[in-house]
Amino acid sequence: MLGIGDDAAAWQPSRGRLSVITTDALVEGVHFFAGEPDGAAVGHRAMAANLSDIAAMGARPLLATVALGVAPWVTQAWIVAAYRAMAALAARHGARIAGGDIVRSPVVSFALTVVGDVSRTQLKRRDGGRPGDVLAVTGPLGASRAGLELFRHDYPAIEETQRAAARAAFATPLPRLREGRWLAASAHVHAMMDSSDGLSTDAGRLARASGCGALLEGVPVHPAAEAVARAAGDEPLAYALHGGEDFELLVAVAPRAFGHLAARYRAHFGTPLLPVGRLEAEPGLRLDGGAGRRDLAAAGWDHLAALEVNGAR
Amino acid sequence: MLGIGDDAAAWQPSRGRLSVITTDALVEGVHFFAGEPDGAAVGHRAMAANLSDIAAMGARPLLATVALGVAPWVTQAWIVAAYRAMAALAARHGARIAGGDIVRSPVVSFALTVVGDVSRTQLKRRDGGRPGDVLAVTGPLGASRAGLELFRHDYPAIEETQRAAARAAFATPLPRLREGRWLAASAHVHAMMDSSDGLSTDAGRLARASGCGALLEGVPVHPAAEAVARAAGDEPLAYALHGGEDFELLVAVAPRAFGHLAARYRAHFGTPLLPVGRLEAEPGLRLDGGAGRRDLAAAGWDHLAALEVNGAR
Repeated sequence: MLGIGDDAAAWQPSRGRLSVITTDALVEGVHFFAGEPDGAAVGHRAMAANLSDIAAMGARPLLATVALGVAPWVTQAWIVAAYRAMAALAARHGARIAGGDIVRSPVVSFALTVVGDVSRTQLKRRDGGRPGDVLAVTGPLGASRAGLELFRHDYPAIEETQRAAARAAFATPLPRLREGRWLAASAHVHAMMDSSDGLSTDAGRLARASGCGALLEGVPVHPAAEAVARAAGDEPLAYALHGGEDFELLVAVAPRAFGHLAARYRAHFGTPLLPVGRLEAEPGLRLDGGAGRRDLAAAGWDHLAALEVNGAR
Repeated sequence: MLGIGDDAAAWQPSRGRLSVITTDALVEGVHFFAGEPDGAAVGHRAMAANLSDIAAMGARPLLATVALGVAPWVTQAWIVAAYRAMAALAARHGARIAGGDIVRSPVVSFALTVVGDVSRTQLKRRDGGRPGDVLAVTGPLGASRAGLELFRHDYPAIEETQRAAARAAFATPLPRLREGRWLAASAHVHAMMDSSDGLSTDAGRLARASGCGALLEGVPVHPAAEAVARAAGDEPLAYALHGGEDFELLVAVAPRAFGHLAARYRAHFGTPLLPVGRLEAEPGLRLDGGAGRRDLAAAGWDHLAALEVNGAR
């Protein structure tokens, strides 16, 4: 009811629903290339990362705020393109940018906050998983990591379809908001989070939060990740396990309900709900890549480990 | 009901109240000194700036999120001190830090978002002022600018009381949350905002939003601003008009109600509600410094003017 231009934005929360809030920052040289020419792509990714966290709660997004750090190299056109991309992606999911702050900064940075809401019965946390639950994701993994690789090096042998899919997964990822709300409506979905920091990191987090361990097996590697990893001399499964930024949802589903839920999911969305393993009572993360189980170290992106700071997230 | 550790934090909004949200960023080298040794002071200021915007709506703060950019020079102790200061100031006003993001960055940056709530009848906007309204502030101005000056240069002749007041106004400003809610309860307060960007800038904004102009006269200069400005060879009134970061509230009050409201305010808080001028039908901003009226150019901090970006705030 009151947006940009006053000290704060105001809105009327829906009666009987919980509010949710998330914040996620992107910094030049860390999350996107220094001097990145495409403001729209950066804005899109910044909003997608935040909306994905809203999706992971089973919520719908309502509004966003944007704190933008503007470096000397940035043009007004770049900023406008970034804002338009953020606003467009938010609008596609029913939300709008309600406020912000623009400050000078030596590097470009985006700190976005998104507020959403969800009915109390549909809120999905990451700590509700149980031993035996099927772990599944809303799409094959590794394409974003492949796209990043293509921005670094050109591999002319890769066919155009895979090339385009990888680049799109990296530059314009789509948050799984509809999928998140659909999955949240099922009581058989015990836990949900997004896989944005890499499956090895995020499955470990979900398992730990749920007081379990996890076995990963049959992890679905995106065809574009297969193609690019092979061209780059990398292991395709490593892209899927550790690449991150895929913005798929990761769910823990009651094992007896999984078949029926996956069939309904496929019928509704036209894409499969893909098993990636299961929760186990024994703590720790294990991988069965076809040649037996081995312990798996999380190698995705962990902000706190990277900074050696604890207890702040 | 769900805080740090999941994809998003969740809370139950109070029935029948509006939610408000604000975001404000501080960047090293712009809003605080590069290599600033005192993490607690920076954290405090970052939270104060955001809480002040909540105060300006007549709202109470509920929760905050923090996106922190961490530069290589920062120690874990510095970050912990900053977080503790943010959490302590929030807690003093009934709010808590509910989530965040920590990212690597070449410079330290804080992007905070605070959510609050307010009853629909008490929400104060900046566009409700009317010609003839008395403009008033919750405290004398310019002390923060004086404190900044003292961090840059030492002026041994200034007495310790003023020195301490100036440093505190700059380093640990106190948002006027109780004052904001008290003022918001009066229907005679037609408009309210905070004066964080400098009175000349903010009075101009309130007047413009209200479709008016403004005359500033009798602007109360903080004694510490008087002392430091004189020592530095500056004009004390300029500190009060253009210094910014004072985090006092600026209100437009029905003229016939002002005397009674100010008396009640003084009785309640023990400090005066200080007139700084009035709204006028004629657009523009004017100053009467005792020697007649002159047009006044806004010379406080304007993020957008500084960046030459329009339409984004």
